[in-house]
Amino acid sequence: MYSRTMNHFVTICSSMSRTPLNSLKSDEAGPKQGPTFQDGQRRVDYVLTYHIQKPQSFRRKTSHFGDYRILRSLRRSLSMMRGRDTPPPKEDPEVAAHKHRLDYHEDDKRFRQTEFEDNLREMGLELEKDEGNKIPGIGFLKIHAPWNVLCREAEFMKLKMPTKKVCDVVERINLFIRKATAPLHPKVEPNRAQNMLFYPLLSCQILYDEWASYSVFYKYQPIGLIRKYFGEKIGLYFAWLGVYTQMLIPAAIVGAIVFLYGCATVDNDIPSMEICDPRNNITMCPLCDRACSYWKLKTACGTARASHLFDNPATVFFSIFMALWAAMFMEHWKRRQMRLNYIWDLTGFEEEEVSLCPYNTACLLLYVCSYFSLDYVLITLFQEKKVKLTCTDRAPAYMTGLFTMLIMVGVTFAVVFGVILYRISIKAALHMSSNPTARTNIRATVKGTAAVINLVIIIIMDEVYGALARWLTLLEVPKTDKSFEERLIIKTFVLKFANAFSPIVYLAFFRGRMVGRPGDYVYVIGSYRMEECAHAGCLMELCIQLCITMLGKQLIQNNLFEIGIPKIKKLIRRRKSDMDSQQQEDYNMTLQRHEKDHFLGPFVGLSPEYMEMIIQFGMVTLFVASFPLAPLFALLNNIIEIRLDAKKFVTEVRRPIAARAKDIGIWYNLLRGLSKVAVIVNAFVISFTSDFIPRLVYQYMYSPDGSMHGFVNHTLSYFNVSDFQPGTAPLQPMHLGYEVQICRYKDYRETPWSNTPYDLSKEFWAILACRLAFVVVFQNVVMLMSDFVDWLIPDIPKDISLQIHKEKILMVELFMKEEEGKKLLRDSHSNQSPLQPRSRPASHTPSNC
Amino acid sequence: MYSRTMNHFVTICSSMSRTPLNSLKSDEAGPKQGPTFQDGQRRVDYVLTYHIQKPQSFRRKTSHFGDYRILRSLRRSLSMMRGRDTPPPKEDPEVAAHKHRLDYHEDDKRFRQTEFEDNLREMGLELEKDEGNKIPGIGFLKIHAPWNVLCREAEFMKLKMPTKKVCDVVERINLFIRKATAPLHPKVEPNRAQNMLFYPLLSCQILYDEWASYSVFYKYQPIGLIRKYFGEKIGLYFAWLGVYTQMLIPAAIVGAIVFLYGCATVDNDIPSMEICDPRNNITMCPLCDRACSYWKLKTACGTARASHLFDNPATVFFSIFMALWAAMFMEHWKRRQMRLNYIWDLTGFEEEEVSLCPYNTACLLLYVCSYFSLDYVLITLFQEKKVKLTCTDRAPAYMTGLFTMLIMVGVTFAVVFGVILYRISIKAALHMSSNPTARTNIRATVKGTAAVINLVIIIIMDEVYGALARWLTLLEVPKTDKSFEERLIIKTFVLKFANAFSPIVYLAFFRGRMVGRPGDYVYVIGSYRMEECAHAGCLMELCIQLCITMLGKQLIQNNLFEIGIPKIKKLIRRRKSDMDSQQQEDYNMTLQRHEKDHFLGPFVGLSPEYMEMIIQFGMVTLFVASFPLAPLFALLNNIIEIRLDAKKFVTEVRRPIAARAKDIGIWYNLLRGLSKVAVIVNAFVISFTSDFIPRLVYQYMYSPDGSMHGFVNHTLSYFNVSDFQPGTAPLQPMHLGYEVQICRYKDYRETPWSNTPYDLSKEFWAILACRLAFVVVFQNVVMLMSDFVDWLIPDIPKDISLQIHKEKILMVELFMKEEEGKKLLRDSHSNQSPLQPRSRPASHTPSNC
Repeated sequence: MYSRTMNHFVTICSSMSRTPLNSLKSDEAGPKQGPTFQDGQRRVDYVLTYHIQKPQSFRRKTSHFGDYRILRSLRRSLSMMRGRDTPPPKEDPEVAAHKHRLDYHEDDKRFRQTEFEDNLREMGLELEKDEGNKIPGIGFLKIHAPWNVLCREAEFMKLKMPTKKVCDVVERINLFIRKATAPLHPKVEPNRAQNMLFYPLLSCQILYDEWASYSVFYKYQPIGLIRKYFGEKIGLYFAWLGVYTQMLIPAAIVGAIVFLYGCATVDNDIPSMEICDPRNNITMCPLCDRACSYWKLKTACGTARASHLFDNPATVFFSIFMALWAAMFMEHWKRRQMRLNYIWDLTGFEEEEVSLCPYNTACLLLYVCSYFSLDYVLITLFQEKKVKLTCTDRAPAYMTGLFTMLIMVGVTFAVVFGVILYRISIKAALHMSSNPTARTNIRATVKGTAAVINLVIIIIMDEVYGALARWLTLLEVPKTDKSFEERLIIKTFVLKFANAFSPIVYLAFFRGRMVGRPGDYVYVIGSYRMEECAHAGCLMELCIQLCITMLGKQLIQNNLFEIGIPKIKKLIRRRKSDMDSQQQEDYNMTLQRHEKDHFLGPFVGLSPEYMEMIIQFGMVTLFVASFPLAPLFALLNNIIEIRLDAKKFVTEVRRPIAARAKDIGIWYNLLRGLSKVAVIVNAFVISFTSDFIPRLVYQYMYSPDGSMHGFVNHTLSYFNVSDFQPGTAPLQPMHLGYEVQICRYKDYRETPWSNTPYDLSKEFWAILACRLAFVVVFQNVVMLMSDFVDWLIPDIPKDISLQIHKEKILMVELFMKEEEGKKLLRDSHSNQSPLQPRSRPASHTPSNC
Repeated sequence: MYSRTMNHFVTICSSMSRTPLNSLKSDEAGPKQGPTFQDGQRRVDYVLTYHIQKPQSFRRKTSHFGDYRILRSLRRSLSMMRGRDTPPPKEDPEVAAHKHRLDYHEDDKRFRQTEFEDNLREMGLELEKDEGNKIPGIGFLKIHAPWNVLCREAEFMKLKMPTKKVCDVVERINLFIRKATAPLHPKVEPNRAQNMLFYPLLSCQILYDEWASYSVFYKYQPIGLIRKYFGEKIGLYFAWLGVYTQMLIPAAIVGAIVFLYGCATVDNDIPSMEICDPRNNITMCPLCDRACSYWKLKTACGTARASHLFDNPATVFFSIFMALWAAMFMEHWKRRQMRLNYIWDLTGFEEEEVSLCPYNTACLLLYVCSYFSLDYVLITLFQEKKVKLTCTDRAPAYMTGLFTMLIMVGVTFAVVFGVILYRISIKAALHMSSNPTARTNIRATVKGTAAVINLVIIIIMDEVYGALARWLTLLEVPKTDKSFEERLIIKTFVLKFANAFSPIVYLAFFRGRMVGRPGDYVYVIGSYRMEECAHAGCLMELCIQLCITMLGKQLIQNNLFEIGIPKIKKLIRRRKSDMDSQQQEDYNMTLQRHEKDHFLGPFVGLSPEYMEMIIQFGMVTLFVASFPLAPLFALLNNIIEIRLDAKKFVTEVRRPIAARAKDIGIWYNLLRGLSKVAVIVNAFVISFTSDFIPRLVYQYMYSPDGSMHGFVNHTLSYFNVSDFQPGTAPLQPMHLGYEVQICRYKDYRETPWSNTPYDLSKEFWAILACRLAFVVVFQNVVMLMSDFVDWLIPDIPKDISLQIHKEKILMVELFMKEEEGKKLLRDSHSNQSPLQPRSRPASHTPSNC
C-alpha cells in the first residue's frame, strides 16, 4: 500500500472529473461551454432546486430542507475542526430537529437556507440564485466551483495519476488486437475523451451518439466516458452488464448447438420412436377420475418427440458447461473489476468512506459528500448525532420484517398452488364438456392460460414485493446508507426470487411426483387429483414455463415498465401544468437547461436494473439443464437492455449523482450464491426431472441387448382395472372400442399379480439410488472443477500486477532521489533553498493508452 | 487505504523492532546490554560468519560467497539509482558469475569480500572483524547499526504508530475479563515488553521463562513478544497454533461427551444385545476358503459392542458439529489475523514486497532484504538479472515433477495394498496353523502388526517424500522465494497427505466392499480372498487405525524427530571437533555468544511444523465421524507441541531471520480445502461406513414394531452351502458340532430359494438410495450452515474496524490542521518559516493496552 501512497502525491488536478447534475437531451445540444452564470464566464457545475416558501404554506416538505439541518451540523463540526469558536449547540441536534419539525416557522427556514448558502460560500464555492422565473414556486441555486477549490479537493482526495508504461511487444500485440476489433469500439478517441472533461455537455452528446443508441448494439461500451459522466457506481454497472452480455455469447452459441443437436437426433430417439409406433398398442390408465377414459400411448407421440429436444445427453454436458461458465464469468468479472479499479485509481479507495453518509439524507448531501470528499467530516458528524437504537428498540421492526417476509413467501406458494388448482379444475371441467374441439385442445388451452396467469401474477407481485421490501427496510432504520441498500436488496431479492422461481421449482421437482398411483390417488381439496405429467416427463412443461416467463417478463418489464411508464409519468406531469401541446412547446423553448431538467424523472438507483439481471442470471444458470436456449434469450434481451438503460440514463432521468464504488457490492455475493445453488439444482433437474438416469440404468442394467429398445415398456407399470377405488373408474370404459382389463401407468411398481402388488419395485429403488449417486458425483465434480477454474485464473490480471510493480520501482526511485537530496543537504550543512528536497516530484504526462 | 496512509507518516523510531541473529541459551544469560564491539559501547546487532580462505583451498564453497556476487549487483544497482557513475559492468552478471565459478581466484574472493564490507559501511553500518580466534577457519563479521541508520530505515518503512483509544465501557469489560483470566496470561508486562526492545537478550530470557516451558502450558502465549523477537512470520505461526489449540478445547470436550454417550448406551443397544444373546443361534459362513469353518455370530459380540462406542446417533451430530467447528475455526483465525495485522501495523503491508527476493539467495541477503527494506532495489536487481526460462525450458522439469508425483502416489497405494496382502496372507497362514492360542488371537495379532507396519511405513515415507518434494521443486526453478515455498508446500502436502490417509481411506470406504459373496468371492493374486469386515462394520478397525496413526505419528515425530535427532546432530557436530567432554566444557567457557551460536542447528523454516499440524487437522476433521476422540488426542498433542516448538526456537536453533508476513499464506487455503473435503468425507463415513442408515431404514421401513429388534437378522442374507464353488468349502464342516445346511453372511441379497438367487435385493437398493440421499442432504445442509457461519461472523472484528474509523478521523484532523496552516500562509503572503506547515505532526505516546 505504501508504494501506492507515494504515488498519491503525484497530484494531477487536470485529471479530476466533475459531475454536474444537469442532464441533456442531445437534440438540444447547447453551447460547447454549457450553461454559465449571468456573467457568461463562470460555468454552472451544479444546480439545486428548492421550493420558494410562501408564508404559511406548510403543504410541501421537500427533502432539501431536511438536508439543511444536517448541513448545519456539518458546518458546525467543520468549524469546530478548524478551531473556531462557534456558540455551542443548545440542544441535541436530533431533538432539535424534532422540535423544528413541530414548529416550522418560515423565518427559521429562511435563516437556515441563508446559513446553508453561507456555508457553501465559505467552502469557496460561488453561487447565483435564479428564483421565480419560468416555473412558479421553484427556485434554482446555481453553483460554480472555482479552479482553486477543485485543486484543494483534488489534493484532499489524493488523486493519483496512473503511470502506464507498457513494454514493446505487448503494446504491438495490443495494437494489432485493437486494429482488428476497431469496428467494435465506440468512436471515442481517448484524447478527446480525456480533454473533454470540462465539457460535460460534449461528453453527453458522445454518449448519446456512441452508446445510447440501438444502432451501435454490436460495439463495446465507452466505459471510461460513462464513468466520467455518471461516476464509478454507474460505470461499474454498465461494465458488469457488458461483461455479462459478452460472456453470454459463448453460452448462447453452445446452448443453440445443444438445442440443434436435440432437433437433429429426434428421429433417432428409440423411446419416442416406440411411443409413436402404432404397432405398440399400449393402453394407458385414465388421467382423471370418472370423466377421463383409457387412452393410447401413441397420442403422447408429439410431446415425447418435443421432450427429446430438451432431454438428451447433450443437456448434461451443457449443464456442466454452464456451471463452469458461471465460475468463469465470476472470475472474468473479478479481473475486469480489478482492471477498472486500477484504471480508475480506486485501488486505495475504501468502500466505507462514502457509505457512512447517513442513509436518510437526500441527494444534495450525498453529492456534497461524494464530490467534496467530506466523508470524514460526515463520519464525525454521524457519530455525533447517531441515536443508538438498542436491540430492544429494533426487535419489533426485525420481527415485523421476518414475519412479513415469511407471510409473503407463503403468499407466493399459495399463488402457485392456486394456479395448480386452476389447472386441475379447468382440466376436469373441460374433460367433462361434450364439445369435442374443446376436449382435443384441452392440454394446450390449460397450459397456455395457466402460464399466462402465472406470468401476470409474477409481474404484479414483483411490484408489490418491491414496495413491501422498501417499507420493511425503512422500519428497521439501518444505520448507514450502505446498510440500508444491502438490507433492501436482500429483502427484495428473496421476495422476487421466490416469486419468479416457485412455479418453476414446482414444475421441475414436485409436479407429477405426488400423484399416487391408479387405485390410490392423492386428492387435494375434496376430489381433485394432483396433476400428472405427460408421458415423457415434466421437462417439456418446465420448458414452456421458463420460455414464457423469460420472454414475457423481459418484454413486458422492458417495454411497459422501463419505457412506457416513465413516458406516461412525464405526460401526466406535463398535463398537470394545464397547457396544450403548442403552448407547451413554446414554453419549453423559453426554458433554460436546468429548468428543463427539472421536469425529468428522478434517478431511482441501480437496484431495479441489477435485480432484473440477477433474476435473469438465475433463469440462465439454475434451470439451464431443462432449457438450453435460456442463454440465447438472455443475450438478445441484454443487447437491448444495455442501450435501453443507456437511453434512460442519458435522456429520461435527471443526471444521477456521481458515486464512487470499488465493486458491485452485495450483487457479487448474490451472483456467487446463485452459481453455487445452480450446481445442485441442475444436478437434480438432470437426475430427477429428465429421463437421463432411467435410460442409462435401463441400458446398462435391464436391457436384454444393451439398446434402448423396450425402455418405454420398462417404465410403465401394470394396473388391474378391477382395483379402481369405488366411484373413480371411467364412465366410458369402452371409449377405445374394447374392454380394458389391464392398463399401464408411468411408475416403477410391482405387478398386480406379485406378492406385494403395487409396491415400489426393485427397479424403482435401483434407479433412485442411481439418480442420487449422479447428484452426488455431479455436484462434487462440478464444484471441484469450478474451484479449479477459480484457482487457475488469477484475480489480478498479469499486466496490472506488473504495472503495480513498476509503480513501486518508480516510487523507490523517487524516494532515493529525495534521500539523495537530504544527504546532500546534510553534507553541505547549508540552509539555502530549504524547500527543495521536499518539493513534489515532477508530474508525468498522463498517457491513457 | 488512504487514511492509513496518512498515519504512516507518524513515524516512530522507538517502536522499531530489531532482529539480531544470535540466539541464547537462557542458562547463560549474559550482561543486560548483550554482546558489544571491542569498545564495549556499540552493540552487536548481527553477526556474519565466513570461512577464512587458505590459498588454493577450493574445497568449500559456502553460500556466503555466492551472496557476495549478488550483493555486488545489488550495490551496482544501488549506485546506479543514486546517480553515481560506476564503471559499467563489463558483462552480464549471470555469465560473469558462471565464469567466476570456473576460475575461482583467491584474490577475486578477497576483493569481493572487501567490496561487500565497503558496501555495508556505505549504508552507514559499523563493522568489526573477529577472525581466527577460537574456531579455526571461521571468521565473524560483527555489525552494528547506529541510531541514525535505524531512523532512516524506519522512515523508509513508514512505521506507523497504532493509536489506541478504547471507549470506557469496553475498556472496563476488557479489564474485568483480563483480571478474571489473569492467571492464564504470561507474565509479560506490556510496558516491560515495550521498553525492552533494545535488549533482545532480556526478551529471550522472558520467552524462555514464560513461553518455552512445559510448566506454563495452560497460559496464553506472549505473541507480541514472540513477534518482536522472531518476526511476524513466526509470530503468526504461533498465533495460529494457539488459536487452533484453543479451538480444539470445545471440540475435545464434545468429542469426549459423544464417546461417553456411546459408552453409556452400549448396554441398551439392541443390535449388539442381539448379537451377544446366546439364544440367537445364527451360523455364519466361513471367513476364508477351506481353512476357516462356520462360526457363531455371538463370537463377534465384543466387536459389536465396541463398534457402538463410535457408531451411534451422537456421531452424526458430532460430524455436523465438527463441520461447523471447522468453519468457526477458519473465521476465528481470520479475525485473529486481522487483529494481529492491525496491532502489528501490517494492514498496509503487501505480501509481495518481501516475497520477491530471489529464492536462491541465502540468509544474509534475505536479512538485508527484510531488515533494510531493500525489496524494491531487489526487485529491480532481480528483473535485471533474471534469465527468462521459457515454457520449453521448464517443460521437462514440470513433466518430471508430475510423473514422479504420480509414481509416488502409486507407490503409496502399492504400500497400502502390500499391507492388505500381508494381512490376508498372515491371516490365512495363522488359520491354517494348528496352534490353538495362535488361532484365538488371530484377529488381534493381524490388526496390531498391520497397523504398526503401516505406521512405520508412513513415518519412513514421510521423510522420503519431504526430500523428494524439495528436489522436484528445485528442478522447476521457481522465480521467487514465495513461489518456491508454495510449490514445495503443495508437493509435500499431496505426497504426505496421500501417505497418511490412503490406509485410512481404504479402511473407511473399500475394505469389506469388494469381497463378493459366498460361492462367488473376489480373489486377488491367485487364491487370496479380499478382506471382510467383522460383523458390526469396518468402523472399529478404522478407529484403531486412526488411533494408532495419530498417537504413534505424533509421539514418534515429536519425540524422535523434533527432540532426538537435533540432539544427535549436535552431538555429532561436537564429536567432529575431536575433544572429550571436559575439554569441550572448558572450551565452551572461553567462547563468546556468537561463537557458541555457531554450533546450533540452522533454522529450517516453518513448513514442517505447519505440515504436521495440517495433517493433524485432516485427521481431526476428515474422519471425525469414525473417531470422536481425535480432537482430544490432537489437543493433548498440541499443548505439548507449542512448548516443544518454543523450546526448539529459543534454544535449539540459531535465531531465525525475522520475516514479515501478513497471513499464513497457502496454509490457509489448504485448511479451507480440507474443511470443505471434510464435509463430504464425513457424509460418506456416516452413510457408508457406519450402520446409521441401515438402522434408520430398518426402523422406519421394515421393522414390524418400529423397534430395532430383528435388525441383525435383517442384515444377514442366506447361503446354501451346496452352492460353494468346488474346493472352497470348509475342510472341517462339522467344526460347530452339527451339519450346516444354510449359513448367513452380511449383505442384502436374495435368498437361495428366490427366482434370482443371490442377486442384490430390493432392500439393498432401498438402503443404497437412502445412504445417497443422506449424503446429498448432509453435504448441502452442512455446507449451507458453514456458509451461514462464514457470513454471520464479520471478518474484521468490530473494535478493530471502529479503531480504523477513529484513525481516519484523526487523519482528517491532521489534514485540516495542515490545510489551516496552508491557508494562514496563503492569507498572510509572508515567506517566514516556510517549513512549518509541512512539519511532521507530533508523535503520540504509544499505549499498547
